[in-house]
Amino acid sequence: MTKLYNVAVVGATGAVGEQIILQLEQSDLPIATIKFLSSPRSAGSTLSFKGKPVIVEEATPESFTAIDIAIFSAGGSISAELAPEAVKRGAIVIDNTSHYRMAEDVPLVVPEVNEDALRQHHGIIANPNCSTIQMVAALEPIRQQYGLKRVIVSTYQAVSGAGNLAIDELYTQTQAVLNNEPVEATILPSAGDKKHYQIAFNAIPQIDVFGEDDYTYEEHKMINETKKIMGDASLKVAATCVRLPISRGHSESVYFEIDEAGVSAADIKASLKDAPGIVLQDDPATQTYPQALDCVDKRETFVGRVRRDLDEPKGFHMWVVSDNLLKGAAWNSVQIAERLVALNII
Amino acid sequence: MTKLYNVAVVGATGAVGEQIILQLEQSDLPIATIKFLSSPRSAGSTLSFKGKPVIVEEATPESFTAIDIAIFSAGGSISAELAPEAVKRGAIVIDNTSHYRMAEDVPLVVPEVNEDALRQHHGIIANPNCSTIQMVAALEPIRQQYGLKRVIVSTYQAVSGAGNLAIDELYTQTQAVLNNEPVEATILPSAGDKKHYQIAFNAIPQIDVFGEDDYTYEEHKMINETKKIMGDASLKVAATCVRLPISRGHSESVYFEIDEAGVSAADIKASLKDAPGIVLQDDPATQTYPQALDCVDKRETFVGRVRRDLDEPKGFHMWVVSDNLLKGAAWNSVQIAERLVALNII
Repeated sequence: MTKLYNVAVVGATGAVGEQIILQLEQSDLPIATIKFLSSPRSAGSTLSFKGKPVIVEEATPESFTAIDIAIFSAGGSISAELAPEAVKRGAIVIDNTSHYRMAEDVPLVVPEVNEDALRQHHGIIANPNCSTIQMVAALEPIRQQYGLKRVIVSTYQAVSGAGNLAIDELYTQTQAVLNNEPVEATILPSAGDKKHYQIAFNAIPQIDVFGEDDYTYEEHKMINETKKIMGDASLKVAATCVRLPISRGHSESVYFEIDEAGVSAADIKASLKDAPGIVLQDDPATQTYPQALDCVDKRETFVGRVRRDLDEPKGFHMWVVSDNLLKGAAWNSVQIAERLVALNII
Repeated sequence: MTKLYNVAVVGATGAVGEQIILQLEQSDLPIATIKFLSSPRSAGSTLSFKGKPVIVEEATPESFTAIDIAIFSAGGSISAELAPEAVKRGAIVIDNTSHYRMAEDVPLVVPEVNEDALRQHHGIIANPNCSTIQMVAALEPIRQQYGLKRVIVSTYQAVSGAGNLAIDELYTQTQAVLNNEPVEATILPSAGDKKHYQIAFNAIPQIDVFGEDDYTYEEHKMINETKKIMGDASLKVAATCVRLPISRGHSESVYFEIDEAGVSAADIKASLKDAPGIVLQDDPATQTYPQALDCVDKRETFVGRVRRDLDEPKGFHMWVVSDNLLKGAAWNSVQIAERLVALNII
C-alpha cells in the first residue's frame, strides 16, 4: 500500500502559497491530510483544496505535530522560528525563504540539477531563489555535456517575486499613470528598504537590499546559490538583477563560457532540446523565443536566442524565461516533495 | 559677425523629429531659417519653432536648395534617396537612420567620444543607434584612462525607440490588460517583421529583425557601431537587446573588461565623475542609481551600480541609462551640428 503523507503549507495566503496549493492539487503526491498555516492576521480565512474548504490556521510549533512534509513560504523570520519546530516533530521542511539556503547542512535543490543532495538532508531542504532556479536548470544540461566555467547574467524580473502587494502596486501605479494621476510607491524595490520607487513604465536596478560590496542580496543569492547547487566553488558567476513592470515571469540574458572547444550553437541547442524541465523555443526565422507572458502557469523553463559569442569561441548567449511563482518557487518546492517520495527519502 | 545657418529637419513630425525641434529651440546654434520636411502624408500640418508657426513641407530634392544643415530622421529609405540630394546642393547631412552608419567615408559620431571624426566628412555624418550612443559615452572616459578590451551588454529598451505608434501601442495595450479586454499587437517588436507580440507587461528579446547569424540587427548595430566609433576593430563586443514596457529611457546592464590591472570600482567612478555628458548616480547606501523614469527630457547619460566583478579583477559592471530620444537621437544630432560650428567645420 502506498504511504500517504500529512502536508502543511506555511504562508498559504501569500503569492507563492497560493501557487503551492495549486501545485499540490495537480501533484501526484499521495496526500492524506492538508493543513494551511499563516500568520495570526490571515488565520481564520477559508481556502479550498481539491474542492473542499480548508480553514487557515495560525502557525505555531504545535501545528506541526504529525506533519510529514511542511512547505514554508512565509518569510525568513517565520522559517527561522518554526522550521526547527517542525523538524523536531518529525516533519521534513521544504523552505522557500533564503534563511537556510547557504547553511552547510541544508541541501539547496533544483531536482533537474542536484536531486541526489536530497539524501543528505537533516530535516530542512532549501528551495533556491527564483532567478537562480531557472538559470541553473537551463545551464545544467549544457554543463553536463560541455563543462561550464563562467556565467554573467542580467535579469528582467517580474514584480510578483516581491509578493501580492507588489503586484497590486504595479497595477495601481500603471492605472494612475494612464489617468495622469499622482503615483504612490510603498513596496518596491524592497519593502524593507528606506526608499520606494515607481515601477510602472520604469526599470529599477535593485532587488532586495544592498550588501556592503555594493551588490544586492538578490545578486549575492544568484552568485552563491549557483555555486552551491552546482557544487562548484570555482565557477565564475556574476549577476545584475533588475525589477521590471511585468507581473509574472522572470527573463534572463545569460552569457556563459564552456570548457570544451569547437562547440556550436546547434550543439548547445541539442543538449537543451530533450533536457528535463526545459523547453527549447528557438527559431529566429519564425520569431520564436521565450517571452514572460507565455510562461505564466507553466512549470517548465523556456530557453531561446541561443547563439555563439562573436569574439569568444567558448562563449554563448541565451534567453531564459520561467514562471517565477512556479519553477521559481511553488512548483520547485512541490517537485522536491515528489522527489523525496520517489527516491524513498521520506 | 557670426555666420547664420539655414537648417532643415526631415521627418519633423516623428517621435525623434519632435525632439530634434525642441533641441534646436534650446540650442545655441546660430539659425537663420528653419524648414520642416516630411512625407507627403504629413506635409501641410503646422508645427511651431521658437513660438512661430512653421508649415511642414513635403521633402523633395529641391527642398535642400540653400540649406546648410539637414538633420534626417525619416527612415533609411528617405535618407538613401534624399541625403545625397541635400549634399549635392551644399548641405551637411546629419543622418539619424542606420543607412549610412557603416559606410567607410561616413563619420559615425558621438561628440564625447570621437568628434575629431567630423573633420573627415564628405557631406554625410551618421548619428549612431540610440543604445550604442549612451553605452560608448559611458565607456569612453574609462577607456581613456584604463583601456578597454571587452564589453557584454544586455539592454532594457523603451518602446519610443520604435516611434510614436509604438508608444501608442504600449499605452493602448496596457489599458486593455487593466480592463481585462483583448490586446492587439501590430507594431512591436518590429513593424517590418511578420509577427507582432504584446509588449504590455512583457519582455521581448527582439529589436529590429534577425540577421542570418541569429543576432538581431539592433545587436549588430551595437556591436559594429561601437567598434567603429571607438576606432578599435579588435574590441570584443557582445549584445542582447530587449524591448520592455517602458515609454522612454533605455537602460543597459554593461559588463566590461579593462586593460589595466589593479583598478578599483572607486577608480572607475572617479573617471566617470567629471566626464563630459556623464552624470554619476551611484550610492547604494541611499539607493541612488539611474532609473529610466528619471532620465526623461535630460541630455546626459546616467551611470550607476559600478562594481568590480567578484571573479575577474579587470572586469566591472555598471548600469547606464539615457533618454533614447535625446542623447540617443535628437540631442546627439543637434550636438553634432553645434560641434560642426564650434570646430569651424561648417
